[in-house]
Amino acid sequence: MIEDEILIIFQPKNKSIKVPKGTNLIDAADKAGIIIPNICGRSGKCGKCKIKILQEKIPYTLQEEVLLTPEERSYGIHLACQVNAMTNLLVEILTEEKVTTTKFLTYDLANEFEIDNHIRKVFIRLKKPDIKEQLDDIENLKSSISLPTRQISIPLPVLQNLSSFLRKNDFGGTFVFSDNSIINIESGDTTNRLFGLAFDLGTTTIVGSLVNMFTGEILGISARTNPQTKQGADVISRVKYATSEPGGLTKLQAIVIESINEIIEELCNQAEVNFREIYELSLAGNTIMNHLFLGVTPKYIAESPYIPAFRKSQQFTAEELGITIQPRSPVSTLPNISGYVGGDITGFILASDFHKSDKIILGIDIGTNGEIVLGSKDRLLCCSAAAGPAFEGGHITNGMRAMEGAIDKFNIGDDQAFFHVIGETDPRGICGTGLIDVVAELLRVGVINITGKIETPGADSLPSWLQKRIIVGEKNNSFILVQENESNLQKQIILSQRDIRELQLGKGAIAAGIAILCKELGIAINEIDQILIAGAFGSYLNKYNAQTIGLIPAIPAERVKYVGNAASLGAKKFLLSQKIREEADQIINNADYIELSSRPDFQEIFAEKMLFEPSH
Amino acid sequence: MIEDEILIIFQPKNKSIKVPKGTNLIDAADKAGIIIPNICGRSGKCGKCKIKILQEKIPYTLQEEVLLTPEERSYGIHLACQVNAMTNLLVEILTEEKVTTTKFLTYDLANEFEIDNHIRKVFIRLKKPDIKEQLDDIENLKSSISLPTRQISIPLPVLQNLSSFLRKNDFGGTFVFSDNSIINIESGDTTNRLFGLAFDLGTTTIVGSLVNMFTGEILGISARTNPQTKQGADVISRVKYATSEPGGLTKLQAIVIESINEIIEELCNQAEVNFREIYELSLAGNTIMNHLFLGVTPKYIAESPYIPAFRKSQQFTAEELGITIQPRSPVSTLPNISGYVGGDITGFILASDFHKSDKIILGIDIGTNGEIVLGSKDRLLCCSAAAGPAFEGGHITNGMRAMEGAIDKFNIGDDQAFFHVIGETDPRGICGTGLIDVVAELLRVGVINITGKIETPGADSLPSWLQKRIIVGEKNNSFILVQENESNLQKQIILSQRDIRELQLGKGAIAAGIAILCKELGIAINEIDQILIAGAFGSYLNKYNAQTIGLIPAIPAERVKYVGNAASLGAKKFLLSQKIREEADQIINNADYIELSSRPDFQEIFAEKMLFEPSH
Repeated sequence: MIEDEILIIFQPKNKSIKVPKGTNLIDAADKAGIIIPNICGRSGKCGKCKIKILQEKIPYTLQEEVLLTPEERSYGIHLACQVNAMTNLLVEILTEEKVTTTKFLTYDLANEFEIDNHIRKVFIRLKKPDIKEQLDDIENLKSSISLPTRQISIPLPVLQNLSSFLRKNDFGGTFVFSDNSIINIESGDTTNRLFGLAFDLGTTTIVGSLVNMFTGEILGISARTNPQTKQGADVISRVKYATSEPGGLTKLQAIVIESINEIIEELCNQAEVNFREIYELSLAGNTIMNHLFLGVTPKYIAESPYIPAFRKSQQFTAEELGITIQPRSPVSTLPNISGYVGGDITGFILASDFHKSDKIILGIDIGTNGEIVLGSKDRLLCCSAAAGPAFEGGHITNGMRAMEGAIDKFNIGDDQAFFHVIGETDPRGICGTGLIDVVAELLRVGVINITGKIETPGADSLPSWLQKRIIVGEKNNSFILVQENESNLQKQIILSQRDIRELQLGKGAIAAGIAILCKELGIAINEIDQILIAGAFGSYLNKYNAQTIGLIPAIPAERVKYVGNAASLGAKKFLLSQKIREEADQIINNADYIELSSRPDFQEIFAEKMLFEPSH
Repeated sequence: MIEDEILIIFQPKNKSIKVPKGTNLIDAADKAGIIIPNICGRSGKCGKCKIKILQEKIPYTLQEEVLLTPEERSYGIHLACQVNAMTNLLVEILTEEKVTTTKFLTYDLANEFEIDNHIRKVFIRLKKPDIKEQLDDIENLKSSISLPTRQISIPLPVLQNLSSFLRKNDFGGTFVFSDNSIINIESGDTTNRLFGLAFDLGTTTIVGSLVNMFTGEILGISARTNPQTKQGADVISRVKYATSEPGGLTKLQAIVIESINEIIEELCNQAEVNFREIYELSLAGNTIMNHLFLGVTPKYIAESPYIPAFRKSQQFTAEELGITIQPRSPVSTLPNISGYVGGDITGFILASDFHKSDKIILGIDIGTNGEIVLGSKDRLLCCSAAAGPAFEGGHITNGMRAMEGAIDKFNIGDDQAFFHVIGETDPRGICGTGLIDVVAELLRVGVINITGKIETPGADSLPSWLQKRIIVGEKNNSFILVQENESNLQKQIILSQRDIRELQLGKGAIAAGIAILCKELGIAINEIDQILIAGAFGSYLNKYNAQTIGLIPAIPAERVKYVGNAASLGAKKFLLSQKIREEADQIINNADYIELSSRPDFQEIFAEKMLFEPSH
């Protein structure tokens, strides 16, 4: 072992890793393949990255004193972000981010479309050169191609290989064209094999799909937590990291590309495809993710007047970006509509065919920002509502993201509360969808009123088991979601009055955004024909409860659909069809982006939409 | 000093260099900045790389035993290519390649043409973005450009810099376009500064010219011996090296690009131009040099049916090729006419305006291959004659290239012989032009006859001083060019019968090529209106003597012109004008290449042209 290196062993998986002295535990865990959740960019504020240090005693930082209970500290629980390891450590992981891929694609939206690949493979056999007809190899090739244009270009590495290739392969081979450029030559006739990748680059999760480019068949899906979450859970903290840390932008780009490469390797192994057979990649991310992916500063998106460097699809080669597929393959971002309505929403629109619909569709993708699209083939409007972190479990006393240990469903019965925990384990906290269920249920049974206040119960207003769950405080009350003995952290999971306010701000922002788009389109809210909810959040959401609290319009529930990972599907359609690429360009040119912050009526509508009541 | 490193000191310059044990002395010298001539690719056959090893005694190889006299060996003279240094050595350099740049450009041909640059610089001030008109930076830029097309493309590094650049520079800057691609942005208004480079990549010498792209003014010229000469003096030995040595092709490309970069650095320093201000480079080399420059194997040019990978101009970026100018600048090769009539000849044609001429012009570039062009605006013919190494001093007993110490002119007076030595030093050998002079003079005075035979003089046929110079041998005679005391190697410089045969083969091949082109064009040799002789060789050539021996047609001598480095001038015109690039494409499409080896009449004409008599 090198001097100044220390050994860290992570339990219960017994993974060990050598790191330089002073390495932060989040980085050490990452190196060991374990992602510890952290949503504050390691500032010691979110308290999400709890771990337990066994055997050793390490002093606590001020942030830890604030966020950890004396009991937790007595067990050796620390915030991983506050520990820079100076000696060998034995660390117990309490919370690990895990991604389940099952819900990433729904096939409701897998509508038919014509495959019209940008990449073309053609088997060509050239004439053998003879001394009389002195055609050089390129001229010989050009004269053998029956393409509309003969203006082909040949990249340097292909030119360097051309002469030897032809002579080793009896002057025949499969030529791979991207537009008029021959990006590779393969031995033999391989015109029946062509693969591509569609990526959804989410702020939280990266999902890659390996696609057979002739049939559109998905050969595999793989996902990773976006490693940039270590530099902050939301886009704004990443912009801060990119612009204020030296080398921050380069690092954010590098780690996301590394993660993409890991996904590609996994997909290739599973499907027995060689990475060199992958000739195209499309990627749908929000505007800031797209900028970071290309190493373009997102700084000016985050400050007024919120201008991105680009909206249109950007295309570079895999080689330029360091992506390990066939080096000269085109890698394209889906076009962004605005700084806060990105390529993921363009993907959602493409996947759902909004832009071809006779009906008026409302599309929502709920996260830290709630992106909202409204319209039909006649007109498309969109906006981004600053929903805050509540839907992702941020700023919530026992909040957490929708991962193992999170309460994602909650229901109040006659004599007890029922809840569901992701991963079927003991509950460790509550995620956004659980929160919506809780508030809807508490509204229904009368624990809270439409202003969101947890009322101090009167004598017989509630069954006694429910009354006992209300903790009456000096100013505000709280509600016990899970009793101490039910939780794996041996403590209560509670809902505070402040937690309800956080949710209220988030739901108010989204509902106000929807209302303003309806107003702008000149329709009443109940004239919406269909609601599509995208994203992982939508998959866990109870639509009835979402309507009860007024998060989404109260149209007949059968017309509300979860569409899962629509961005991935949009990226796949973009990957496979040049016509759809043109449609994407038209979408971003024609969609009207409404900047909510510049609307004089926003504050009033927002205030109104803060109430927990159905929205009509 | 690291173990296994040894120290080599080169005298008389007292340059010392540390190299790994076993390093070949040619490499060691190269590392010390000294180029030792070697034309056989270090096979120990040419005997050109003599050096003297002081103090140490080193055993001789078989090749050295053959090529060095016992006397030379007694002095410690070795062939550098045969010595792999195993201990510290003190080495005296006897012959160093030096390049004089004075003769590289003649201005006879600097005909007027319109500058029409491919690279455009435009100062653009963009609108400042506001929150209402949400134009992204690229859209803002496009809307500010008054170019015919708005289909601009922005390379990744420029995109990565765009947003910050605009905000640091008050949304204004100088945008540099190559076609529709913005390859760089410069602060402020720099539209009055734009530089380019024209290179003549010769088999022996690389010449670079730094050009003001607005005026065409040449700001500096710099030259280097082509470092590939270490891997063989002629193109065929380089093809062998590239195809048979592991990594040979890569190495040949790397060293020539390194040399080009050195020339660029020198030119930039002299002219006070920053390398980032250079936005274009054009390069004229023969077909094999062009292939090696791009790292494309020249293997199939060297074997039947002699097919190059490309003939047309190839354009890549400086970055792709490792050339240190503005990274995304286009670097273009001049188009080749055939495997053995390359971009240098296209440059010669462009420089001389053959393709626009009413008169019939004969153009000759003499080297190991003699490239010949004949024609006018109506029709252009060309061929390559395998002249062999005689014109470059190869296979000649005391032959050497036209460098310091070489007899380049020779003249027989009434009672003595006069000669001129390049560099005004003592003579060390004779170069091609000197050889032509010698043969012409010996013909004139009757020492040799038109068959080239050195006759054994009869009693009073020659003055006695001249008779004494003829060494009568058993089979063949020789002629003493320089007496022992006049030479700095303390030995005679002689001309053997075999040397004359070598020259005869070379001159026969070229004269036969000319005769065949005339025949093909349907003219008599004396119907040629003008002869242009290009290349360094031409600059030293005595045209009267060249006509006497029948190397060039015997048309009135005032119509024979030396045009010096026409390839450089052609590269410069190609650099500065898009129209001229189109002309170059037409030239290679329209010029008829005659493969001499496939002509049934070649042998007969060749035999006839071996005679030393004027060619009509």
